[in-house]
Amino acid sequence: MNFISDNAYGASPEILAAMTGAAAGTAISYGDDELTARLTAKLCELFEREVAVFPVVTGTAANSLILSALCPPYGAVVCHAKSHIAVDECGAPEFFTGGAKLALVNAPDGKLVPGQIDEALTHFWGGVHAMKPSVVSITQATEMGAVYRPEEVAALAERTHARGMTLHMDGARFANALATLKCTPAQITWKAGVDALSFGATKNGAVMAEAAIFFDPAKAGDFGRRRKRGGHLVSKMRFISAQLLAYLENGLWLANAARANATAARLAEGLAKVPGVTLAHPAEANAVFAWMPASLAKTLHDAGARFYDWETAPDGRVMARLVCSFATPETDVAKFLGVAAGR
Amino acid sequence: MNFISDNAYGASPEILAAMTGAAAGTAISYGDDELTARLTAKLCELFEREVAVFPVVTGTAANSLILSALCPPYGAVVCHAKSHIAVDECGAPEFFTGGAKLALVNAPDGKLVPGQIDEALTHFWGGVHAMKPSVVSITQATEMGAVYRPEEVAALAERTHARGMTLHMDGARFANALATLKCTPAQITWKAGVDALSFGATKNGAVMAEAAIFFDPAKAGDFGRRRKRGGHLVSKMRFISAQLLAYLENGLWLANAARANATAARLAEGLAKVPGVTLAHPAEANAVFAWMPASLAKTLHDAGARFYDWETAPDGRVMARLVCSFATPETDVAKFLGVAAGR
Amino acid sequence: MNFISDNAYGASPEILAAMTGAAAGTAISYGDDELTARLTAKLCELFEREVAVFPVVTGTAANSLILSALCPPYGAVVCHAKSHIAVDECGAPEFFTGGAKLALVNAPDGKLVPGQIDEALTHFWGGVHAMKPSVVSITQATEMGAVYRPEEVAALAERTHARGMTLHMDGARFANALATLKCTPAQITWKAGVDALSFGATKNGAVMAEAAIFFDPAKAGDFGRRRKRGGHLVSKMRFISAQLLAYLENGLWLANAARANATAARLAEGLAKVPGVTLAHPAEANAVFAWMPASLAKTLHDAGARFYDWETAPDGRVMARLVCSFATPETDVAKFLGVAAGR
Amino acid sequence: MNFISDNAYGASPEILAAMTGAAAGTAISYGDDELTARLTAKLCELFEREVAVFPVVTGTAANSLILSALCPPYGAVVCHAKSHIAVDECGAPEFFTGGAKLALVNAPDGKLVPGQIDEALTHFWGGVHAMKPSVVSITQATEMGAVYRPEEVAALAERTHARGMTLHMDGARFANALATLKCTPAQITWKAGVDALSFGATKNGAVMAEAAIFFDPAKAGDFGRRRKRGGHLVSKMRFISAQLLAYLENGLWLANAARANATAARLAEGLAKVPGVTLAHPAEANAVFAWMPASLAKTLHDAGARFYDWETAPDGRVMARLVCSFATPETDVAKFLGVAAGR
Repeated sequence: MNFISDNAYGASPEILAAMTGAAAGTAISYGDDELTARLTAKLCELFEREVAVFPVVTGTAANSLILSALCPPYGAVVCHAKSHIAVDECGAPEFFTGGAKLALVNAPDGKLVPGQIDEALTHFWGGVHAMKPSVVSITQATEMGAVYRPEEVAALAERTHARGMTLHMDGARFANALATLKCTPAQITWKAGVDALSFGATKNGAVMAEAAIFFDPAKAGDFGRRRKRGGHLVSKMRFISAQLLAYLENGLWLANAARANATAARLAEGLAKVPGVTLAHPAEANAVFAWMPASLAKTLHDAGARFYDWETAPDGRVMARLVCSFATPETDVAKFLGVAAGR
Repeated sequence: MNFISDNAYGASPEILAAMTGAAAGTAISYGDDELTARLTAKLCELFEREVAVFPVVTGTAANSLILSALCPPYGAVVCHAKSHIAVDECGAPEFFTGGAKLALVNAPDGKLVPGQIDEALTHFWGGVHAMKPSVVSITQATEMGAVYRPEEVAALAERTHARGMTLHMDGARFANALATLKCTPAQITWKAGVDALSFGATKNGAVMAEAAIFFDPAKAGDFGRRRKRGGHLVSKMRFISAQLLAYLENGLWLANAARANATAARLAEGLAKVPGVTLAHPAEANAVFAWMPASLAKTLHDAGARFYDWETAPDGRVMARLVCSFATPETDVAKFLGVAAGR
Repeated sequence: MNFISDNAYGASPEILAAMTGAAAGTAISYGDDELTARLTAKLCELFEREVAVFPVVTGTAANSLILSALCPPYGAVVCHAKSHIAVDECGAPEFFTGGAKLALVNAPDGKLVPGQIDEALTHFWGGVHAMKPSVVSITQATEMGAVYRPEEVAALAERTHARGMTLHMDGARFANALATLKCTPAQITWKAGVDALSFGATKNGAVMAEAAIFFDPAKAGDFGRRRKRGGHLVSKMRFISAQLLAYLENGLWLANAARANATAARLAEGLAKVPGVTLAHPAEANAVFAWMPASLAKTLHDAGARFYDWETAPDGRVMARLVCSFATPETDVAKFLGVAAGR
Repeated sequence: MNFISDNAYGASPEILAAMTGAAAGTAISYGDDELTARLTAKLCELFEREVAVFPVVTGTAANSLILSALCPPYGAVVCHAKSHIAVDECGAPEFFTGGAKLALVNAPDGKLVPGQIDEALTHFWGGVHAMKPSVVSITQATEMGAVYRPEEVAALAERTHARGMTLHMDGARFANALATLKCTPAQITWKAGVDALSFGATKNGAVMAEAAIFFDPAKAGDFGRRRKRGGHLVSKMRFISAQLLAYLENGLWLANAARANATAARLAEGLAKVPGVTLAHPAEANAVFAWMPASLAKTLHDAGARFYDWETAPDGRVMARLVCSFATPETDVAKFLGVAAGR
C-alpha cells in the first residue's frame, strides 16, 4: 500500500524497452541524434506548432532552467506558497536565475486566480528598489491534486501578459491533468497563453525524463548554454529521448495517467464515505488529500500503508496525502479502504 | 569508423538489464533506496574506506558540484588550460561555485606537475584583492589520453595540501586509467592524496551514471542540498545506482576499459607506422592524438571515419583525436589503419 | 516640509569637517589606515568587547554582505515581510548569498516574536528538499518606527540559536533605537544575543557610512574577500572611517538621533490630536505612521509637505509615512501640524 | 616618498569643498537630485552625445556592473592577464555577471592587439560547450602605465564588434590617458568604438567617485536594478555627483592628471639615467615601471621610499612600480632620484 508518491514506482515496460532499443550502434551525442530529432518533431505535432524542446532528467531542472531563461537575476516569480518550486527544490529557482525572488500567494487547491498576481506584487513598487515582476508560475495538476481549466489558465495568462510577465506551467503531472481535462495539449498550454512548460514524464512511468518546452522558440534564448552549464546536457541524450518517445507513442502517457487518476478517484470516493474523513481538495488528478482523525492515520500506517501526514490541524486531525501512480495495484486501494472502514 | 568520442556508443547490455531489473516494485525515492545503499557499500569496499557517494547523471554535474563543495565563491581552482572543466562545461564550475575562477596552466599531455600550482597562483598575491587558492583539479586519464601514476598524484597532492588547498580528480575516464595502471582504486586516489573524485561510468558503458565521491565524508558538507538545488537529485535514483552496481559488479568496468584501451593501443601502434604520422601524446588510455598531413585527415574523413581535427599546426598538419570505446569494433580499427596506410 | 525620508537631508557639519580633515597627507589604502584602526578601536570600546568592523557605504551592502557570511547559498533567512532586505534592496540578499531565500512573516509594528521563527519555517521540512534555516534578521528600529527592547531581542535570539541559526540586526536606524532605549549598545546587541549588526550612520547625519559588525569576529569568515568582490572595498577608506569616528565622538550620533526622535514625537503627538487621524504604529523612533482621510493627505501634499502615502485602506484612508531626520526644522513640524489641523 | 599608489593621496580641495557645499538643504535621494542631473548633462556635453551615467563609489563596482550588463552568466570576457578585473578584484566580474569567465591574454605594456581577441577565444569552439564570447575589456591607461591611441582602440573595436562582442574600457586612469593623448574624450571612446566606460575619478583626486557610462543608453539595460542589488545605489548620491562635477568643472580632472603625468615623466627620465636601471614599460601616464638591481630597490626602501616590488626577474633584478598622483610632491621625486643616483 504505497501512496507516498508517484515516483515510488518503477517505469513502464515500454519505456524500459525503448531505452534498451536505443543502445544499439553509435549516435551523435549531446542531443544531435535521431531520436531527439524525432522527439522534437513528435512534440511539435502534439502541440500543433513549432516548439523548442530541451530534454532533461528532473523536473527541478526543467523548472529552474525555464525560469532562468524567463526571469532576470533581479526579477520576481509569482507562484503558490506551497508550489514545488517554492518548497521542494532547495532554492533551485534562486540558484539558476542567479538570485530571483519567489513572490508567494496562497490559493485554494493550489490554483492561482488573476487577482493574486497583483496581490503578490503589492510591495514591488516599481523603480529600482524592487525586483522586476517577470514570471507567473503555475502547476498543472496542482500540488493539491486540482486541475486548471483552459479558461482559468487563459485568465491568468491575460493578467500575466498585461503586466509584461510570462507564464510558466510546471507540468510534472501534465498528463494527469490532461487525462482529466480531455482537451488537447495545445488548448491547455499555448492556446491559453502558456509561454513555457515543464513537461513531466518521470512521475508517470518514465525512468528519468522531462522536457523543457518553449512555445515561442525565441523565448528560449540561450537555453542550450544554460542547460550545459547546469550540468544537464546528458551526453547520451538518445536515452532520454527514447523514453519520451515511448511515453508519447501509442498513447502510453495518457493511458498511464488515466489509470492513475482512476485509482485516485476510487480512493477518494471510498475515503469520502468513511465517517470522520473529508476530502481537503477535489481529487481531480492522481492525488487525494483527506482530513482524518489522527487515530485513523495511525491505524493505516500501522497496517502498512505508506503516505505522508501532510498537515496537522489545530484539532489534531491529520491531512493525509495519498498519491496514486500508473502502477498502483487496485488491490492496494481496496485493502486501504478496508482498513479505513474498519473492516 | 566512429572515433569521435566514447560517448557515441550506447551502453553495455549488463547495465541495460540492470535498469530493467530495477524497475520492479516500489522504492524510496531520492536515494534512500536499497540499490543506492548497496552502491555506497560497494564503493566503500572498492576504495577500502568509508566514502560519501552521490550519484548524478553527468560528469559536468559531478565535477561542478564537487568544486562547489570544496571552493568558496571567492576561491580559485588550479587546472589545465584544456581540461574539461575549463573548456567544455560552459562555465559550470563558475556557476555552481557562485563565481570561482579557474587558474589555468599548460602541461604536456595534460598532466600537471607540482611546480605549476605555484606558477598558476603567481598573481594571487594574497590579501583580499585576489581570490583564495582553494582547489587543484586534475583529470585521470587526462584529456590528452595520458595517465597519472600514483607517485605523480602524490607529489601534486603534497603541494596542494601544503598550500591549504584540496585535490579533485575528474575521473570521467577513471576506469581507463585504472586499467592501465593496474593499481588499486585506493592507491591512485585517497592513498595518493586525492580528496574528491568524479567517478565516471557513462563514457565507459553506462547509460548515464556518474558519482561524486568524497574520501573524507566531512568534506562533502551540505552536498545533498547542493545536488538538489542543482536539479541533480534524481527521484528514481535506483536507476542510476543500478547502472553503477552493474558497472562495478563482475568487473565489467575494468573489462570495458581494458577493451577500449587495447583498441586504442592497436590504433596508436598502427598509426605510428604510417609515414608522416606522429603521436602527439602517449596513448595510455583510450584516446589517440596523432599529427598527420591535412590530406591524410581528409582522406580518412572521406572514407567515413568520424573523428575531430583537434588542432591545426602552423605547417598545416592536423592533430586528429581518435577515441575508442568499450564497444568500438576491431574491424573499424583495421579498416581505419588500412585507409591511413593507403591500402 | 520634507518628511519623505531621513536620507533627504545632507550631513552633519562635524562629519563633513572630518572628511576634509582626513584628506591631508598619504594613507595606506583599502582600510589599513590609521583612521580605520581608530574606528575599530572605538567600536570595540563602545560595544565593550572585541568586534570585527567592516566599513561600507550603504546599508544594503552591510546587510547583504553580512547575510552572505552567515547564510549559505542554499540557506533561508527569516525576516519581516516588509523589512528593508525583503522589499527595498532589489534582491541584494539573494544576490550576495548566491541564492538564499527570505522566509517572510508579518508582525505588528515590524517586530518579530519568537513563535514566528518556527511559523516561517513550517515548510522547511528538513532534508535536502528544503533550504537550510540559517539566519533570523530583525530591524532596529523597525521599518514601522517601533523599537525592540533588550528582552525582546533576547527572546528572539534564544529561539534563533536553539534552531542552530544566527541573529542579524539591521541597524540602519540603530542610533534612533538606542536614543529611545537608553541602554548600552552592548545590551541591545550581543548581550541580547545578536551575532552581527549593520551599523547605520548615513540616515542619521553621515554622508555615506555604515559598518558591518560581527560580535564574534570568527563568524565574519572571509568577509574581507566578500566585501572586495562586491566592489565595496573603498580604496580611500579613511574617508568612511573619518565619518564614523566623527559620528561616534562627542556623542554626535545619539544627539542627532535624539533630536530626530523628539521631532517625530512632536509630530506624532500633534497628529494624534487631529480628528480622523490615528497612529498606525507607536512612534518610538524617528518615523510616524498615521492613518488619515485621503482628503487630508492631499491637503498636506498640496501645502508642500513631502511624504509617502505608504498604504491605502479599503475604506480609502491613507497611511502616511513621515520620517524625521537629525536636521528636520522644528518649524516644519509646526507648519505641518498647522495644515493638518486646518489652521 | 610615497609612490605606492595614486590612491594613497587624499583628495583635491575643490572636491572636498563641493561635498561640503552639497550638504545644504534637502534633496531627492537615490540619484534623482539636481546635482546628479547636472552631472549627467555635463558628461553628455563632454562626450558630445547622449550617454547613460551611473555614479558609484569604486572602480571595481563600475567595472563589474558594466560587465554584468554586457555579458551573460554563460559569457566570456577577453582581457589582459594582469588587468585589474583579472587579478585585483577578487572575482567581482565573476560575481556580478553570475559566473562569466575571463579569457586572458598577455600583451606588451598591457595593450591588447586585435589578433589576441581571436587567440583568446581559440578554445571557445562554439556550440553550447563553450561560453559565449561577449565582451572585450581594455584598460586606459593600462595597468603598466601605457596609453592606447584612438586608432589602436578603433582596431580593437572593429575586431570586437565583428565577433558580435562589445568593448568595455576600464578608465580608472582615464584622465591620465587623456592628458597624454590630448584628444577629446569622444575620440578615445565611442568614436573609436568603445561601448561602455568605467570613468574613474578616485585615483585622480576624488574622495570616492566613479561613473559607469554607456555610450548607447540602450545597452545599459536594467543597470539601475543591477546597481541597487549590488548595494551600490548610494542614498545621498548628491555627494558622489558633487565630487564628479567639481572634478570636471574648470578642468580640474585634466589639470590633476597632467600634473601626475608630468611627475611620473620626471621620475622616469631620471631613473632611465641611473646605471643598471631600465624602464620596463613606456611611462605614458602616471606610473613608472623600472627594472633595477635588488640592492638599489632595497636602498630606496630603506631610505623611506614606498613602492611595490612588482616582479622579480630570474637574474634577481626587481621591477619597481612607482605611481605618481595629482598631489605627489615634486621634492619627493627629486629626493627619490637622488637616492637612486647614490647622491
